[in-house]
Amino acid sequence: MRYEELTIEGRNAVLEAFRAGKTIDKLFVLDGCQDGPVRSIVREAKKRDTIIQFVAKERLDQMSETGKHQGVIAYAAAYHYAQVEEMLQVAEEEGVPPFLILLDGIEDPHNLGAIIRTANLAGAHGVIIPKHRAAGLTATVAKTSAGALNYTPVAKVTNLGKTMEELKEKGMWFVCADMGGESMYQLDLRGPIGLVIGNEGSGVSRLVKEKCDFVASIPMKGDIDSLNASVAAGVLAYEIVRQRINGR
Amino acid sequence: MRYEELTIEGRNAVLEAFRAGKTIDKLFVLDGCQDGPVRSIVREAKKRDTIIQFVAKERLDQMSETGKHQGVIAYAAAYHYAQVEEMLQVAEEEGVPPFLILLDGIEDPHNLGAIIRTANLAGAHGVIIPKHRAAGLTATVAKTSAGALNYTPVAKVTNLGKTMEELKEKGMWFVCADMGGESMYQLDLRGPIGLVIGNEGSGVSRLVKEKCDFVASIPMKGDIDSLNASVAAGVLAYEIVRQRINGR
Repeated sequence: MRYEELTIEGRNAVLEAFRAGKTIDKLFVLDGCQDGPVRSIVREAKKRDTIIQFVAKERLDQMSETGKHQGVIAYAAAYHYAQVEEMLQVAEEEGVPPFLILLDGIEDPHNLGAIIRTANLAGAHGVIIPKHRAAGLTATVAKTSAGALNYTPVAKVTNLGKTMEELKEKGMWFVCADMGGESMYQLDLRGPIGLVIGNEGSGVSRLVKEKCDFVASIPMKGDIDSLNASVAAGVLAYEIVRQRINGR
Repeated sequence: MRYEELTIEGRNAVLEAFRAGKTIDKLFVLDGCQDGPVRSIVREAKKRDTIIQFVAKERLDQMSETGKHQGVIAYAAAYHYAQVEEMLQVAEEEGVPPFLILLDGIEDPHNLGAIIRTANLAGAHGVIIPKHRAAGLTATVAKTSAGALNYTPVAKVTNLGKTMEELKEKGMWFVCADMGGESMYQLDLRGPIGLVIGNEGSGVSRLVKEKCDFVASIPMKGDIDSLNASVAAGVLAYEIVRQRINGR
């Protein structure tokens, strides 16, 4: 029986999970592996009375979803999806306008992980993903997020458009990235804002785009159509950071 | 015998290759596949007298390096690595200061592809990669670059530090991304510039860092260490774009 566990793989990801105080149900370590990072992980696990099992490489390879376990795999209790309300509370406690990132159908777990990583470092208060037709919080996402998933809340909603409407009633503005929008440098992005990133292939869906207050475009000089979704999210998130630090 | 071919996979990547005038030695198409994008590709191939072979899905799956061929795989003549000199010439023709991106040991082909894509759209004149301990131009890179590899020249050099010294003699400045540097908003990045991005795990190597004129840091608010390498490259490349458009 496969219970509601989450597989966390790789040294940094596992160590971060311990340090962030996550409940680890079981830790698997490559038998005979004695180097520094692995010893730190085992120490953290013992401190918390976590069950440790030393296993052969073949076993780890078999358990691994990412193929990059680096000698350690942890089973954590399933990631707790946050509520959007909690994100707004954190912003209020920090005394800054809320900054959320909404993903309208990101399918690639590497992109999702990289965006959660960006959200953490850009000071966003959370990431909102839809229930359907989108990557969820898998082991690949946890690993690609480089530990950010332990700190940055992720909420899963049934209907992204409806969530946006509720947030608009609370004073939030929404900006989506799309070609043909206004240059991001011309927009005032300093208030309570939700940055909407569309699907890797088809972009932002019509219904979601209609609810956006601004359409921002990233200046493009080249020969191809668009940036990678996680790069576009990074460039736009950091334009928001820049405006919040330096003004427009 | 496997000659010096390059496997290009996926509809956008193959179509872009034809449109960019690349020499395609052979095109493999999923037998019976009749939808619009595939018909466009077949039309382009016929126009150029390219050998077309209609094959079963199993055959394509077997040939695929990325696992995401979308029904089309093309064998192109090996990518022509460019010379650094050619990149400087293009900048001179455009009448703008050269803007190059140097990768000090990027290992993940997805990152390399995403960075070439960013370089194209940010108007960089080329990407320079080292011969050793770094990803080369594989099919995964071509696909992840979303066609940018057809337009943005990539040079491969034996010694990145030596190349930087030669370019410094021609008036170029180098900025690398690293923690503890000056905020990127404080630096003047408008001149002839080489942006150096370090390895995913270990960052910029000491020898390369010593040759940099500036160390730039991206403002970080969160709980983890660093952005994904291709996201960091995107954020910094677009800070250069912003300064070139809007001034500092």
